[in-house]
Amino acid sequence: MTFNTLGKIFSFTTWGESHGRAIGCVIDGVPSNIKLSEKDIQPYLDKRKPGLSKFTTQRKEKDAIEILSGTFEGKTTGHPISLIIYNQDQKSKDYKDIKYKFRPGHADYTYWAKYGIRDYRGGGRSSARETAMRVAAGAVARKVIEKKLNNKVIITGALTQIGKEKINYSNWSDSYIIKNNFWSPDKKIVPIWEKQINNARKNGSSLGAIIEIRVKGLPAGLGDPVYEKIDSDIAKALMSINAVKGVEIGKGFDSVNEEGISNVDEMRIKNKKPIFLSNNNGGILGGITTGQDLICRFVVKPTSSILSTKKTINTKMRETTISTKGRHDPCVGIRAVPVGEAMVATTIADHCLRYL
Amino acid sequence: MTFNTLGKIFSFTTWGESHGRAIGCVIDGVPSNIKLSEKDIQPYLDKRKPGLSKFTTQRKEKDAIEILSGTFEGKTTGHPISLIIYNQDQKSKDYKDIKYKFRPGHADYTYWAKYGIRDYRGGGRSSARETAMRVAAGAVARKVIEKKLNNKVIITGALTQIGKEKINYSNWSDSYIIKNNFWSPDKKIVPIWEKQINNARKNGSSLGAIIEIRVKGLPAGLGDPVYEKIDSDIAKALMSINAVKGVEIGKGFDSVNEEGISNVDEMRIKNKKPIFLSNNNGGILGGITTGQDLICRFVVKPTSSILSTKKTINTKMRETTISTKGRHDPCVGIRAVPVGEAMVATTIADHCLRYL
Amino acid sequence: MTFNTLGKIFSFTTWGESHGRAIGCVIDGVPSNIKLSEKDIQPYLDKRKPGLSKFTTQRKEKDAIEILSGTFEGKTTGHPISLIIYNQDQKSKDYKDIKYKFRPGHADYTYWAKYGIRDYRGGGRSSARETAMRVAAGAVARKVIEKKLNNKVIITGALTQIGKEKINYSNWSDSYIIKNNFWSPDKKIVPIWEKQINNARKNGSSLGAIIEIRVKGLPAGLGDPVYEKIDSDIAKALMSINAVKGVEIGKGFDSVNEEGISNVDEMRIKNKKPIFLSNNNGGILGGITTGQDLICRFVVKPTSSILSTKKTINTKMRETTISTKGRHDPCVGIRAVPVGEAMVATTIADHCLRYL
Amino acid sequence: MTFNTLGKIFSFTTWGESHGRAIGCVIDGVPSNIKLSEKDIQPYLDKRKPGLSKFTTQRKEKDAIEILSGTFEGKTTGHPISLIIYNQDQKSKDYKDIKYKFRPGHADYTYWAKYGIRDYRGGGRSSARETAMRVAAGAVARKVIEKKLNNKVIITGALTQIGKEKINYSNWSDSYIIKNNFWSPDKKIVPIWEKQINNARKNGSSLGAIIEIRVKGLPAGLGDPVYEKIDSDIAKALMSINAVKGVEIGKGFDSVNEEGISNVDEMRIKNKKPIFLSNNNGGILGGITTGQDLICRFVVKPTSSILSTKKTINTKMRETTISTKGRHDPCVGIRAVPVGEAMVATTIADHCLRYL
Repeated sequence: MTFNTLGKIFSFTTWGESHGRAIGCVIDGVPSNIKLSEKDIQPYLDKRKPGLSKFTTQRKEKDAIEILSGTFEGKTTGHPISLIIYNQDQKSKDYKDIKYKFRPGHADYTYWAKYGIRDYRGGGRSSARETAMRVAAGAVARKVIEKKLNNKVIITGALTQIGKEKINYSNWSDSYIIKNNFWSPDKKIVPIWEKQINNARKNGSSLGAIIEIRVKGLPAGLGDPVYEKIDSDIAKALMSINAVKGVEIGKGFDSVNEEGISNVDEMRIKNKKPIFLSNNNGGILGGITTGQDLICRFVVKPTSSILSTKKTINTKMRETTISTKGRHDPCVGIRAVPVGEAMVATTIADHCLRYL
Repeated sequence: MTFNTLGKIFSFTTWGESHGRAIGCVIDGVPSNIKLSEKDIQPYLDKRKPGLSKFTTQRKEKDAIEILSGTFEGKTTGHPISLIIYNQDQKSKDYKDIKYKFRPGHADYTYWAKYGIRDYRGGGRSSARETAMRVAAGAVARKVIEKKLNNKVIITGALTQIGKEKINYSNWSDSYIIKNNFWSPDKKIVPIWEKQINNARKNGSSLGAIIEIRVKGLPAGLGDPVYEKIDSDIAKALMSINAVKGVEIGKGFDSVNEEGISNVDEMRIKNKKPIFLSNNNGGILGGITTGQDLICRFVVKPTSSILSTKKTINTKMRETTISTKGRHDPCVGIRAVPVGEAMVATTIADHCLRYL
Repeated sequence: MTFNTLGKIFSFTTWGESHGRAIGCVIDGVPSNIKLSEKDIQPYLDKRKPGLSKFTTQRKEKDAIEILSGTFEGKTTGHPISLIIYNQDQKSKDYKDIKYKFRPGHADYTYWAKYGIRDYRGGGRSSARETAMRVAAGAVARKVIEKKLNNKVIITGALTQIGKEKINYSNWSDSYIIKNNFWSPDKKIVPIWEKQINNARKNGSSLGAIIEIRVKGLPAGLGDPVYEKIDSDIAKALMSINAVKGVEIGKGFDSVNEEGISNVDEMRIKNKKPIFLSNNNGGILGGITTGQDLICRFVVKPTSSILSTKKTINTKMRETTISTKGRHDPCVGIRAVPVGEAMVATTIADHCLRYL
Repeated sequence: MTFNTLGKIFSFTTWGESHGRAIGCVIDGVPSNIKLSEKDIQPYLDKRKPGLSKFTTQRKEKDAIEILSGTFEGKTTGHPISLIIYNQDQKSKDYKDIKYKFRPGHADYTYWAKYGIRDYRGGGRSSARETAMRVAAGAVARKVIEKKLNNKVIITGALTQIGKEKINYSNWSDSYIIKNNFWSPDKKIVPIWEKQINNARKNGSSLGAIIEIRVKGLPAGLGDPVYEKIDSDIAKALMSINAVKGVEIGKGFDSVNEEGISNVDEMRIKNKKPIFLSNNNGGILGGITTGQDLICRFVVKPTSSILSTKKTINTKMRETTISTKGRHDPCVGIRAVPVGEAMVATTIADHCLRYL
């Protein structure tokens, strides 16, 4: 069962509360003799780190990762890799006035209904702080993929929509993605997004976002029908990220607007190898990779922690109101980009290690 | 691992090829002393059955379910329930001219790439015929839910869009859903859909669809963060259905169009119990049910088996063309309705039986 | 969870009651392109078949295995293999007078305490009839091992003790094992065992037995510390067989009689390869195979179904007595030999398919 | 898969090497609102601690446990409990001369064969140091059992044999077990064992041991046939402990010496409840607890780390000799008592939380 574990062979278990002593994860199933040190993991955590720009939360978390086990003389041993980040900038006073109140849109009420206990310190286990460890696991997953699939696989996430403003796909530039605060592949949309986020913040509101993850260099054949399909596993992994409300593959929901005659991806031979004339299926057919780019997308709802006053109830079942004053992301979707990449990476690593 | 098993406590394993001797499933984890006979299962299979109307495939499959184990004197024993349907109307000659060709948009090429073997008889294991057993498992899941949650839970699927034609939500009628060939909740859209499907068929094409599943009567507290969230499990289950390319919860992808200020579901007290003033989150917060209606949606791409000639390749890596002449559904989304209901039912049954 | 499934990659799920319509199993995780037909499985079932000699139960069960899925044109497809045996010689009348009585030493009382339902027909799911499907799964496992480990692996079970009469290990003859009704490796003990069993039967009693399984030809490196060690998995698998009360590896319980100085298996080099000067550890160190013969043993208690009258209670919590009149094995240990072989085979197949 | 995780609902994952920075475990599936602090765990670790008497290793390890997550205000939250012990007295110089040699009887060769890497620092992951975390998990398991089964369950381990010297069962005293350095229930055997161990040490040798675990107060009904039987799970758990070579339930291997007529545990009614007239089956029938005392036993081979010089090979496949000079237990069986208790406790906790 293992409620806090994801993956079958490459599997990771996360633990820790947002305002506890530390957060961590244990990664199992990593083959031996892969070079691994903190330097392989830290850069990905830095991408997710709060306070990178004025468009994300201003909390300061150094998020310095430490490897506690599973490596010897700089290489993996085949045994569990234990990672830890000690919590620093906790400021739990920020949360005192919500001690007995359920923040609407958050998991406060459902955790209380299920567990009968309220860890009011910033959401405890339900906080997006847990995703730091997903990113760390994703970094290790990338090393596994590199080892197993010969260094060709590139996993890239990008924001394609904030609020109602979508990128123009014809402006897509892979290289631009890391050059802006939004992981946008489209240079032209950036000033629009900046303005939009500033407005939302001024209004005590927040915005949602859509993230697209592309994986280049995968072989055909990853995925295990009929209940371990790679798209099913990606859907589960992405949907488990905080605030995610939808996942799609390839053309996704838009495929309802196509007819079969235009939607099937026709095949040809090029250089003696199969190619496809389109990629409406996002590189997955029947739950197995086709060898094309794997393309998936997920939506992050607007941050529920907002300055505006909203109606809610408290643990005594009395009506009250709440306004979240902490330092929060006006658009959590931005920091969800490295998290989404990590979830795709761990899923692919898991499938790489399976028996095929 | 168990590639063909879904669920942790209420778990089911399906087996069988579309043109093999039989298909079946084994359901484990069903508590003892629940009344169960074939009569509890057959009606759901009949909903999925081909040939129900001219809008679905004209293949004749009686799909008579038999219980081979796990019940004694009309009640479950707590031991595995083995279900079987013997295949009848196979007509494998229909498939002979595609023996060496990969049908584009299908799993033919990926199965061949992965397994190195081609079961050309109607897709073999990748055929949607497998979903009959999902529906059977779903029927048993409903009995488990009924036992555990006191008969209040109602799971209803409906088509909300075919091709570009969406229902009008304000016309929604629960009672109308079972009175039409499309599981439409909106009477007015039916003639439009009929016309649209007839056109697609005439053009040798096909249409996609969106299905919505609503679950009424759930308690708060189902779902196990952070990697056994109920929405993650639903996403995995729905995405594993043939031809599904996207899954969403509550407002789903549309939540990107809302600001936080309007998207959070505010809470009040009514009759001493918590209520919500809206349901943008589809009855799930932090991966746990809120006690509201659970609402999810999935998209089924246009059927890939179409009469029009498309480019493809064969097992000898030569270019060729193909036109699928069999008796196929012009819109597989219609028959996906009971399948989607079943996947949600099995997921809920699984969570009902967990330790909480 | 899946209570009726064993194994992680090579996994099998059994179903069916001793007097139900059929028994069966679904085997998942078998790689594609392995030749497989009923002829590969039936001989192992014939070894376990009742009525082989006067020393086993006289029930007639043809136990004809049928493959319902997972093969195509004589080869595995990579998809679940469904096996079935229809029940024939049921004679449920034999069991009528025990309808409400719990047979002592059997699972009757515990099943009733746990499930609140009594399937009085020969033990239902708790009957050793279930082990027929273990044997079938074991036969398929052997095909997987053959494919993965190049045909060198030989798995042989033998009886080493019935009642108080042990074989003389210095008489061990592999070739003699299949030439006698007891799977004895020692020709001299056979008449002693015959006499002993005849006596037990005359006295309305029964005898226990010890079975040894030896596996030749394994490579070093199978087994996954620390909770998927191969000896742990073997212990679990063997202990799950009906009537088994103990499992040991190598010298097993007898190693308490050795000092460390004589018990460690020293190593040398021969033909440039590591060899061991003894095999007290049964070919397993730290939960991983050493490349030596894997040796394990399990004990089967004396059959609990005996003719003598014993004290018991019934479902109404009243005291009563019972005498089991059916056609039972005076020593179930004999028919446990192919079952033990099968459990070792499935465990090894599972470990063969893991990522190493 | 999760090679380093044991249990399905109450599950724990251990990590860490004997001479790494720390060892730890993550326990998942613990219900919320159970009082838990380090004080509930430390006493069990102290029982296992090295250096308790001159009969165990003289290494000094404080083994101070810290809870890093999963509790809030002194109670469990329902979320993963992360435990850590920082390593202190490492003295890795002790191991330098065995850097390239495989210690016979240890996992050195098999780990090297499997993983292709040699962590020579005291066995790394294969060291019995890992069992400290089993003991910690066992302490938490006891809290779960206490909560679920009303404080009646008592789990007690005792040594029943060292070398060839067995206790006299008629001298058994529960209260004496904690009053001696050997966890002996028999006062008279203690001086004999002392002498024997001193002799073994003088001779540069070591001794094996048999440990018996008894569980009082269990209800009938724990265990899930046919592949999650409680005796199977106990067998797996105990066999996974370092140096264990055999496991038995109730009369175990000795049941081969009984006839069925004397071995079945007859039943009567006392105070309107079922009782048994004997307990040859160790409180388990058909894989389910009977409500009697659960009794199991396991054998620990003589410590392989011995002062005497033994033949072995090194990583360069050359012949050599070795003599282990570190501070080792002359009889690891002594410190295996709390470990065995812990493995039984975690198994029972896991079954307590299952759906029945």
